[in-house]
Amino acid sequence: MRGVVMHAPGDVRVEDREDPRITKPTDAVIKVEAACVCGSDLWPYRGADQVSDQPMGHEYVGVVEQTGADVRNVRVGDFVVGSFFASDNTCEICRAGYQSRCVNAEPVGGTQAQYARVPLADGTLVAVPGTPDADLVPSLLAASDVLGTGWFAAVAAEAGPGKTVAVVGDGAVGLLGVLAARQLGAERIVVFSRHVDRQRLAAEFGATDVIAERGDEGVKVLKDLTGGLGAHSTIEAVGTQQSMMQAVRATRPGGHVGYVGVTHGVAIPGEELFFSGVHLHGGPAPVRRFLPELVQLILDRRIDPGRVFDLDLPLEDAAEGYRAMDERRAIKTLLRP
Amino acid sequence: MRGVVMHAPGDVRVEDREDPRITKPTDAVIKVEAACVCGSDLWPYRGADQVSDQPMGHEYVGVVEQTGADVRNVRVGDFVVGSFFASDNTCEICRAGYQSRCVNAEPVGGTQAQYARVPLADGTLVAVPGTPDADLVPSLLAASDVLGTGWFAAVAAEAGPGKTVAVVGDGAVGLLGVLAARQLGAERIVVFSRHVDRQRLAAEFGATDVIAERGDEGVKVLKDLTGGLGAHSTIEAVGTQQSMMQAVRATRPGGHVGYVGVTHGVAIPGEELFFSGVHLHGGPAPVRRFLPELVQLILDRRIDPGRVFDLDLPLEDAAEGYRAMDERRAIKTLLRP
Repeated sequence: MRGVVMHAPGDVRVEDREDPRITKPTDAVIKVEAACVCGSDLWPYRGADQVSDQPMGHEYVGVVEQTGADVRNVRVGDFVVGSFFASDNTCEICRAGYQSRCVNAEPVGGTQAQYARVPLADGTLVAVPGTPDADLVPSLLAASDVLGTGWFAAVAAEAGPGKTVAVVGDGAVGLLGVLAARQLGAERIVVFSRHVDRQRLAAEFGATDVIAERGDEGVKVLKDLTGGLGAHSTIEAVGTQQSMMQAVRATRPGGHVGYVGVTHGVAIPGEELFFSGVHLHGGPAPVRRFLPELVQLILDRRIDPGRVFDLDLPLEDAAEGYRAMDERRAIKTLLRP
Repeated sequence: MRGVVMHAPGDVRVEDREDPRITKPTDAVIKVEAACVCGSDLWPYRGADQVSDQPMGHEYVGVVEQTGADVRNVRVGDFVVGSFFASDNTCEICRAGYQSRCVNAEPVGGTQAQYARVPLADGTLVAVPGTPDADLVPSLLAASDVLGTGWFAAVAAEAGPGKTVAVVGDGAVGLLGVLAARQLGAERIVVFSRHVDRQRLAAEFGATDVIAERGDEGVKVLKDLTGGLGAHSTIEAVGTQQSMMQAVRATRPGGHVGYVGVTHGVAIPGEELFFSGVHLHGGPAPVRRFLPELVQLILDRRIDPGRVFDLDLPLEDAAEGYRAMDERRAIKTLLRP
């Protein structure tokens, strides 16, 4: 089959790879209908994470092609969406809603390809009834990571009625954090962004205010907007020291920071955090917790998270998809095998 | 009047100080009935915080001696307990339960003395009906910081029915975190301690298990006790890098760390926190939020937090009170002016 491999930073190629096979009785193999490039794929692309000959991709929707002997919940031919972490969805941690930290969790990898192996298929995959309309495929794909992650961030930040929500990061996750905060009933949603196209999409997703300033200057503008207090809820969707501290400082005492940007080189100063009085929660999103609800919202056409894909390419053009995101010409690239 | 002054690390003296006066119409002056030495007073005593000629003490119970013109909620002669942070208890942050970060918050200081000025008396002080029995005074004093802080830690850690709570730190705050977790209905309470007298008091307050190992070794023992998962709720009551990371590592994914040890030189590694999946909340405890409930529990003799005072000295012997705590001969010293 054909699949994307990152050989080194900046070196993405589509090449022949071995077809995935069932290796455990709890596996499924899916024919990938759509995959995409994640913001987190840009860390190794830019040399911030080590990478060498790595099959890429962890977001996917597709049709079940084969199932292991123990798989009960999905069948060959089902159209499925799943999380980027495989989980059994039965252990105590899963039942508490933290499937990304399932005691048997395994990352799902190499989904920027024609086929992919999904471990723990029963706990990981959610079958979509029938065959979804073609125009819903991008939104269902978004549910497998970027929507689920933005949603988790909004839940972790306790976005809800009467709340002012600040969003640090105007990438796809931040934008879908806006959408999630709106769905969760937030009163005011302030996005930090200096890109007009992203500001526009944020507004369509429900943002009420935009702040172009960054860092402490941005925090100052936010405080001016909120009677000097800061946001009740802040979504952090970048993962750098600056973005993390901006999120902490943007939040009022007793408020909540939901952080989902994969942290790189971050060290949170204990004393500042102590005196901030904020709640801090985040990590790799337990997307599986939210999938049934998100799939239903998409099928009912109540949300349209697929709009974050502003570049739709054949799998063979993956290198251009990475380049466009790296150069910020695209928010997010969808790849069709 | 007589009051405690720390001139330099290790140099605590009781000396003549100017009587406190009403300086703002929202102030009260109280005659201190009992004060005490806080674990946090040991930071400057040991040279970990800078100190120079500092009047000491921020915990207090006493009788209102004088009130400013705007004070309405307490009267001369009332027996009162208050928090170590003065708060108006009316601003948006106070109403959300974060009185220690009131927009008008002021620290209360110099209470290891015969008299003390309490700013924002209406929002800060809680009057105890009548004159409490003498044997209840230590418990009411505990409510003004150490009990309120342990209680906040347990609430921040979401201790409750069905939960396993771990407690890092066997000082007075940690021990009262045990008491709070028990009151909040925790199923199992595991305290990290290697001091027999503190283990005994922890057991009386409701601890079900003791772990003598520290750091990652202690975490390993805790995981063995909890099916490999870790605690649902962890109270951090020390404030060092080791204790903070021990608390994070002791907690299962999706669990809650309530941290109240005043952090010293702590830097929380972002990636480890990210992948831990824990909730982190803490800071200077909004004691005022809990005071009415805690005072009632004490008056009803349902809790006896005053038992953390195992050294009861006249104010004039304050230097010995500090020394005994520094040398771990005492858990907590009560001072009677």
